[in-house]
Amino acid sequence: MPDTSPTKWHLAHMTWFFETFVLEQYEHNFKPFDPAFRVLFNSYYQDIGERHPRPQRGLITRPALDEVRRYRTNVDERMAALLSRCADDPAFDEVVTLGLHHEQQHQELLLTDIKHLLWFNPMHAAYAKRWPIGAVSPGPLQWLACAGGMFEMGYDATHDGTFCFDNETPSHPSYLQPFEFASRPVTNGEFENFMADGGYHRPELWLSMGWDWVCAAQRTAPLYWHHDGKQRRQHTLQGDVGTDPHTPACHLSFFEADAYARWAGARLPTEAEWEFAARRLRQPARGQHNFADRGALHPLPPAPSEADEPVQMFGDVREWTQSNYNPYPGYQPLPGAVGEYNGKFMCNQFVLRGGSCATPAGHVRASYRNFFPPDAQWQFSGLRLARDAASP
Amino acid sequence: MPDTSPTKWHLAHMTWFFETFVLEQYEHNFKPFDPAFRVLFNSYYQDIGERHPRPQRGLITRPALDEVRRYRTNVDERMAALLSRCADDPAFDEVVTLGLHHEQQHQELLLTDIKHLLWFNPMHAAYAKRWPIGAVSPGPLQWLACAGGMFEMGYDATHDGTFCFDNETPSHPSYLQPFEFASRPVTNGEFENFMADGGYHRPELWLSMGWDWVCAAQRTAPLYWHHDGKQRRQHTLQGDVGTDPHTPACHLSFFEADAYARWAGARLPTEAEWEFAARRLRQPARGQHNFADRGALHPLPPAPSEADEPVQMFGDVREWTQSNYNPYPGYQPLPGAVGEYNGKFMCNQFVLRGGSCATPAGHVRASYRNFFPPDAQWQFSGLRLARDAASP
Amino acid sequence: MPDTSPTKWHLAHMTWFFETFVLEQYEHNFKPFDPAFRVLFNSYYQDIGERHPRPQRGLITRPALDEVRRYRTNVDERMAALLSRCADDPAFDEVVTLGLHHEQQHQELLLTDIKHLLWFNPMHAAYAKRWPIGAVSPGPLQWLACAGGMFEMGYDATHDGTFCFDNETPSHPSYLQPFEFASRPVTNGEFENFMADGGYHRPELWLSMGWDWVCAAQRTAPLYWHHDGKQRRQHTLQGDVGTDPHTPACHLSFFEADAYARWAGARLPTEAEWEFAARRLRQPARGQHNFADRGALHPLPPAPSEADEPVQMFGDVREWTQSNYNPYPGYQPLPGAVGEYNGKFMCNQFVLRGGSCATPAGHVRASYRNFFPPDAQWQFSGLRLARDAASP
Amino acid sequence: MPDTSPTKWHLAHMTWFFETFVLEQYEHNFKPFDPAFRVLFNSYYQDIGERHPRPQRGLITRPALDEVRRYRTNVDERMAALLSRCADDPAFDEVVTLGLHHEQQHQELLLTDIKHLLWFNPMHAAYAKRWPIGAVSPGPLQWLACAGGMFEMGYDATHDGTFCFDNETPSHPSYLQPFEFASRPVTNGEFENFMADGGYHRPELWLSMGWDWVCAAQRTAPLYWHHDGKQRRQHTLQGDVGTDPHTPACHLSFFEADAYARWAGARLPTEAEWEFAARRLRQPARGQHNFADRGALHPLPPAPSEADEPVQMFGDVREWTQSNYNPYPGYQPLPGAVGEYNGKFMCNQFVLRGGSCATPAGHVRASYRNFFPPDAQWQFSGLRLARDAASP
Repeated sequence: MPDTSPTKWHLAHMTWFFETFVLEQYEHNFKPFDPAFRVLFNSYYQDIGERHPRPQRGLITRPALDEVRRYRTNVDERMAALLSRCADDPAFDEVVTLGLHHEQQHQELLLTDIKHLLWFNPMHAAYAKRWPIGAVSPGPLQWLACAGGMFEMGYDATHDGTFCFDNETPSHPSYLQPFEFASRPVTNGEFENFMADGGYHRPELWLSMGWDWVCAAQRTAPLYWHHDGKQRRQHTLQGDVGTDPHTPACHLSFFEADAYARWAGARLPTEAEWEFAARRLRQPARGQHNFADRGALHPLPPAPSEADEPVQMFGDVREWTQSNYNPYPGYQPLPGAVGEYNGKFMCNQFVLRGGSCATPAGHVRASYRNFFPPDAQWQFSGLRLARDAASP
Repeated sequence: MPDTSPTKWHLAHMTWFFETFVLEQYEHNFKPFDPAFRVLFNSYYQDIGERHPRPQRGLITRPALDEVRRYRTNVDERMAALLSRCADDPAFDEVVTLGLHHEQQHQELLLTDIKHLLWFNPMHAAYAKRWPIGAVSPGPLQWLACAGGMFEMGYDATHDGTFCFDNETPSHPSYLQPFEFASRPVTNGEFENFMADGGYHRPELWLSMGWDWVCAAQRTAPLYWHHDGKQRRQHTLQGDVGTDPHTPACHLSFFEADAYARWAGARLPTEAEWEFAARRLRQPARGQHNFADRGALHPLPPAPSEADEPVQMFGDVREWTQSNYNPYPGYQPLPGAVGEYNGKFMCNQFVLRGGSCATPAGHVRASYRNFFPPDAQWQFSGLRLARDAASP
Repeated sequence: MPDTSPTKWHLAHMTWFFETFVLEQYEHNFKPFDPAFRVLFNSYYQDIGERHPRPQRGLITRPALDEVRRYRTNVDERMAALLSRCADDPAFDEVVTLGLHHEQQHQELLLTDIKHLLWFNPMHAAYAKRWPIGAVSPGPLQWLACAGGMFEMGYDATHDGTFCFDNETPSHPSYLQPFEFASRPVTNGEFENFMADGGYHRPELWLSMGWDWVCAAQRTAPLYWHHDGKQRRQHTLQGDVGTDPHTPACHLSFFEADAYARWAGARLPTEAEWEFAARRLRQPARGQHNFADRGALHPLPPAPSEADEPVQMFGDVREWTQSNYNPYPGYQPLPGAVGEYNGKFMCNQFVLRGGSCATPAGHVRASYRNFFPPDAQWQFSGLRLARDAASP
Repeated sequence: MPDTSPTKWHLAHMTWFFETFVLEQYEHNFKPFDPAFRVLFNSYYQDIGERHPRPQRGLITRPALDEVRRYRTNVDERMAALLSRCADDPAFDEVVTLGLHHEQQHQELLLTDIKHLLWFNPMHAAYAKRWPIGAVSPGPLQWLACAGGMFEMGYDATHDGTFCFDNETPSHPSYLQPFEFASRPVTNGEFENFMADGGYHRPELWLSMGWDWVCAAQRTAPLYWHHDGKQRRQHTLQGDVGTDPHTPACHLSFFEADAYARWAGARLPTEAEWEFAARRLRQPARGQHNFADRGALHPLPPAPSEADEPVQMFGDVREWTQSNYNPYPGYQPLPGAVGEYNGKFMCNQFVLRGGSCATPAGHVRASYRNFFPPDAQWQFSGLRLARDAASP
């Protein structure tokens, strides 16, 4: 699949970021580890010059993994030297911090890309072996009322930590009508009801472009689902397992999430609604969230909860919103090549919120915006329902 | 091009709408004019059953034009009979009105599709011959300050006439930050400055997907522009003419409009900003606008104006906004097959506002939302700049 | 389909040939009827300059049919004048004769392209209405022994008439091993046996490329065959009719012909074998052959025959051979643009022999070579079996 | 490129052949090394069941190389045991011999696929480092007269060794007209003359399909040629080097070979002509031919020769012929799955003769037929000219 990259490429690219945007700027007598790497491991920065074509990343047999590891060690050592020398330079600090968050993003992609690659391998290999996860029923979905009104949307240094990407800025007033918000994501069991009700065979449930997508590949289930003749099964990073009805549904495209919501008589939330709800959580993005560090590497059923607030807002599955990925009012990309990071992708992509079970802990926050095209499935992407408040 | 349809198909499809959604529901002893037409002239209504594939419309040699004209006359006569009988039925009234507005939409498509077809014909045929249009300089662009704040967005029966499409509803409060709005659309002359400054060769001016679009087809000018070795020329419905620097630029894709705006240090307006500005006009959508009925069938330079309000908001060129085509809060599609009219296309399309020189007079209003994918060029699509208000 | 052209285009192109290759060379003060037609109606002659792209022929709304008819009348009149003046010029005579044979080829394409266009029209229109054809059983297939040995292959002015295309020359000695040749083409009934025996579902019967072709479009029957729930039916120029088991099977691709032959324990003949057999007929290409002039416009069951020689060698269906379309030893294309007629297509095409029910009478001969890519189906293409002679 | 495979896949596939066609048939209590390998390393044998899709071979990260090596060792050991036990079984002997020749074929593909992969790597890695090769001028091309007439074509156990593939059989009489045959392959220097004369820009030199191929990818030189601003250079298995004018030209498609021959006023030989010439060599396929075992892994200039017979018929470059890859008269594929080896590819491919610098010594013979589609370039494919004998 052209959207995925080999593990070796990810490893080298993360290091390339530090070499290109830090070492090259701050080191005296900078010399590249290997001049060819500048082209080979550039992802999409036009400003940096020529790039190796993305779909050909899989063809790169050299440098071998050993050489990439030497590259990483070399750059790490040089970074360590710079870190002590430049500690007081705010611009240095800013780009190093950006590089660390960039590395976290690729840590997630590493996992989703490996999962995708193993899926095409008839060996049915597992990346890790910690399954099974005890079955827990999350109980019925609750609808939580949200008052809406004016609220401040976007990155907020007081509550969101010390770093954000440029696409989360500037914070700005936003107006919301009253809405209702689901207490938890949609589960496998609920999604199977949609399938049993002919969900993949009823054009009236789908966007026009989504229906074309269903027909073109004759889709009848989410990515990684298959049927062994007896039961539905799911390819996971822990191997091939039966589908657990209580686990949040994942590897859904935007099209599937949108069709499910229409079938359920609801809709996807806007990203403003999602952020509004996230900002009112008593414990945002903390506690025992199911991030990559926990090691499950798969969404889990939510722990029983008494609270009348949404659960699983962070971790488990990224949640599709109905919002296109657009600039905030007053948005300015960063100057220079690092400004190519976010703004230029603001077309035909939809925003997902909240991170997933493959996201490093500490990487996301209430203002964090992830984005993918509507047919992307290989991320841990699920959905949470919303609906307009009933008229009083 | 798969997006365009033959004239004969448009003529039959407009009549098909009345036969299928009116005659079939209201006529006693309804019998179709020809059962095969139900499939042949269905555009995209899944609820109505099987459709003839869109890209094959050009292959339909039968029915011949004469037969299509008989079809139109037959349905027109039967509609006339129903009109007197069912005049007091509000549901009847509603679907007939929808059919009339549907017909107006296809009147515009008829013109843009004919223009596109003639472009591929080395005969350089003209659809009409009323050129040349006297050259008038529109004067420099003015920036008009707009205060923003809360305003009511969407169809308003008091000011917007007696009809609207479902995608203009419901009206709802929307919040805007202060912004500045260009007094008129971008002209050919201004767009040529962008080209002369390397606009089509500088990736930093384009969205990533837009740059791919430029490279894939090696684009260096808007659609219908060519160069005869001496000067730039433009294919129009009035024949092949030199590019007039004072005319609004048109046949731009969203990608081109967006790149121009970035080059100009500005941005595209949101559709809320556009509607906010349109609602404050002293004479919205009236007077001497350049709609299809005027016969120019090409955008014209604006008449000199003393007013400090935007000109050419209606007619001349549809104006790209930066807003994706999404449902309004609380949006509900119409029930039944006519509900397939709008909602299911809400993906990967951008909103254009204000109608064009090919739009029938009386068809558009301040709340009217047109939408096309970001690479569409064959409509009379241009742009108007906006920018954030300077900090006080 | 990109291989077919509109009727209007064929009409104009046949005239274009005479205007370009005759009038332009021989008329004093030659002036083109319309300079744009030179591009518009050039099929593939690189030497003549720019061409209008083939897949866009269907987009040409102008010139209208009336104008094309005026074009034909005009060129016909000027040709008539030249014919009396240049009658004694052998070069003139040669190119006019070539133009006439070229026109005959397009007469056949006119019919096959119309048939293809009507197939995509849900109106089920018929081109002509002379059906039904009386059912006649052709009796079982006979195997006729052919001795082979050395024979002279290629155009022979003594027996093949006064004209040939360059690809039939030079005649040359060819050696054949003994073989057996089927007395008649394969019939619909026989082909249905192949289908009933799983023919379209058994990869071992197909060439690798043919199997890919079957799978890509999920083919299960010849082109123009369908099933109305009760019986197999066939789209013909005479309308939609049931499949007659005694009629030669047609609209087969090379892949289908080759797979059928393998299933039948036989093979396709080489073009040398076909020509060898045709040269030994007592009445080659004369008598009551089913050519276009007969008006059936569909293959017919053979009349009962006592003779121990093959029937239906000419007319009815063009017969696929196993021979690639290659140059004969010593082949030289004609000089100039008309030399582009044949030679440059000698790649990835297979030879068919004998003409069809859509071929003008008098157009084909024993040395005539028709050629199409292996997936082409829209010609009246069938097959006749051959096999190696049993060892003595 | 979909035609190439990873090294790891080749290594496993060669072993898979022995496991599937030998061990599974002859071992008592056969158990597969790993059942998944049956699918994973099947190339194209439909009879063996499901296959892993070819373009996805590059995605297989598991089994890792170590596991593949264990697979090879395991099967080698089991083969050794069988070899002593079944030595007297002719059927066993036959399939093992086939497996050895199959392995030789993949040894060549291993090299050409590695070369292709390194070409896409901006690291400019070399597979081996034995360059430079001393420059030797081969002297002018000589035309050698061949009398033609009847000769016996195809595998001949007396002269061609103890093994052949089924497509070389049965031997059969073939008739040739007198022809002339070039003393050596076309060189880089000669091919550069073709380029300098506008070879890639003159449609009249190309087959129609070849010209489309040139235009589609804007080709202006053979594969692996580039220009560093100062001189023409060539990617080789020995690294990136300047183009040597005396070396045989290689990595030509059939289209390029055919166009060159037309430009040179000659043509490609038929495969019968090539074999006729090869059978008359005094030292066929022996002596100091440049096969893979010599280690150059690139074509070399011919050593000076006094003989009036063609040089470099074997090794250096495979030579395109004008002959399609078709069955010989009386051809029968082997029974069972191994019969899928050759016959089913007999469509839209052209024959090459003589092996190359990447072919294992001892693998080819005068009757050996290699075949590729006309656009294939990644083999060491060149050409030798032929022409019709001048009339006496």
